[in-house]
Amino acid sequence: MAPTHARKDNRLIDGLAVKKRIIAEVRAYTDTHNEMPRLMSILIGDVPEAAVYVRNQARGAEQAGLPFEQVNWAGDISQEACKARIMEMNDDPSVLGIILQRPVPAHINVRSLQSAIHPLKDVEGMNPASIGNIVYSDVALAPCTAAASVALIKETGLPMEGLEVVMIGHSEIVGKPAAMMLMAEGCTVTVCHHMTRSVPMHSRRADVVVVAVGKAHLVGPDMIKPGAVVIDIGINQIETDDGPKIVGDVDTDAVIEVAGWITPVPGGVGPVTVAILMRNSMVAHQRQIAAGWLKG
Amino acid sequence: MAPTHARKDNRLIDGLAVKKRIIAEVRAYTDTHNEMPRLMSILIGDVPEAAVYVRNQARGAEQAGLPFEQVNWAGDISQEACKARIMEMNDDPSVLGIILQRPVPAHINVRSLQSAIHPLKDVEGMNPASIGNIVYSDVALAPCTAAASVALIKETGLPMEGLEVVMIGHSEIVGKPAAMMLMAEGCTVTVCHHMTRSVPMHSRRADVVVVAVGKAHLVGPDMIKPGAVVIDIGINQIETDDGPKIVGDVDTDAVIEVAGWITPVPGGVGPVTVAILMRNSMVAHQRQIAAGWLKG
Repeated sequence: MAPTHARKDNRLIDGLAVKKRIIAEVRAYTDTHNEMPRLMSILIGDVPEAAVYVRNQARGAEQAGLPFEQVNWAGDISQEACKARIMEMNDDPSVLGIILQRPVPAHINVRSLQSAIHPLKDVEGMNPASIGNIVYSDVALAPCTAAASVALIKETGLPMEGLEVVMIGHSEIVGKPAAMMLMAEGCTVTVCHHMTRSVPMHSRRADVVVVAVGKAHLVGPDMIKPGAVVIDIGINQIETDDGPKIVGDVDTDAVIEVAGWITPVPGGVGPVTVAILMRNSMVAHQRQIAAGWLKG
Repeated sequence: MAPTHARKDNRLIDGLAVKKRIIAEVRAYTDTHNEMPRLMSILIGDVPEAAVYVRNQARGAEQAGLPFEQVNWAGDISQEACKARIMEMNDDPSVLGIILQRPVPAHINVRSLQSAIHPLKDVEGMNPASIGNIVYSDVALAPCTAAASVALIKETGLPMEGLEVVMIGHSEIVGKPAAMMLMAEGCTVTVCHHMTRSVPMHSRRADVVVVAVGKAHLVGPDMIKPGAVVIDIGINQIETDDGPKIVGDVDTDAVIEVAGWITPVPGGVGPVTVAILMRNSMVAHQRQIAAGWLKG
């Protein structure tokens, strides 16, 4: 049994190792710069579900040598007040990047606030202008989760050009920008969603399946071509006999028997997403210097 | 022979008729507004190949009741001078929209100029911010050719949700934005390009094939599923015994025997693209009023 088990483990793509490598790259940069400006993380209202994301980002920033400040705005703050505060941060040279944690209260228009973040400080890559630049194959400040998916596919060592990729889920934050980025890498991309007639018809022919839907165990082994790469972006909490558990959109234990490579949840896309946020922050710093906002 | 021939003609989607309908819609709007501001068409250097586009746009504008002004800038104008002039047009309330004709001289960075056009005056839908808004499913000022493809698919009356669309060509101007727009309509979209292993493998299973590559007769009947919709965006000049002739990327005479619907070249996507430019101009006018730039 031992060799089989060992082989099976080798099919897991280790997101923590990828995160460490990217963070070390950013650390090498920040070590050569005195007084890095800080990342501002904004929480609006009482959002306990965001706490774990914020904690991971704060830890990643510390490892990367980036100052990180958490601010909490009252749940009844007006849209205008949020926008005015973001505008101040845009103008403040001691602020490197702005992270707007989600969810936000119902009366807040999150897209309008994302648009208010200056593209040079949009370390999450969520401003429509940043997304537009992806369409133009300029992926420097790409949405972090989408960029993490691309980085994890590259971990397999497969040549990207001509790779048949099926993306399940067409969200603005992940599915669509990831599709654009994969096209820029030379992949042939199909984007499936809840209106697709037969998702398995597509996923079964794919070299790479990327899943970002938010349904526990949506993808089983019958949907995957033997040897394919499976990137699992889902984060779902399910109840088990041992209490609540975090699982992805893929039935990992079953799919690992078929797939060539698979990302675990937790420990796959999540940590790499945090690492990309830090890399985006480094790139933002370089661009702000190039734009004359900061001294080099 | 007559009935067969008649049926075959019915498979042609009449772009001129669609153009007329859209232009009439814009005309009804401009007729209720005195003193519409004008469209500015910018040609940089000596670009004889752009003349036919400009002429068609000028004619479309006249039909739509929109003032149209053609300006020619010297071929040796600097990037900075172009940008400064565009900025002036952004601030000028008598300018409704700015059209930057392509190609531009080699020393001009066309993307940077497109970014300089204010999104509210970007009637061609080429600013990265406009493209980003498409990813967010906000398609009001979409790239004209991409929007024309969508309009022509809708002409068939087929329900868009779940439609299997294969886009051949992943250009920034057409392929990628059209893919985003079709996803927003509920289609399942695959984007093929020169690195795709087998384009026919994809195109043969598609309900709709959209071709934007720029190679005469690239798509033959063996690549199309019987009854499928074929949208031909290509414009290629070929030499024939009767002299030069404009043809699309599809071998129309052969593919019409297989397809359920097909757009002719000329007379398909081209005229509808001009009509969408006029519709974008109308939407830009409405948005400039809403933004307080113009009086209603």
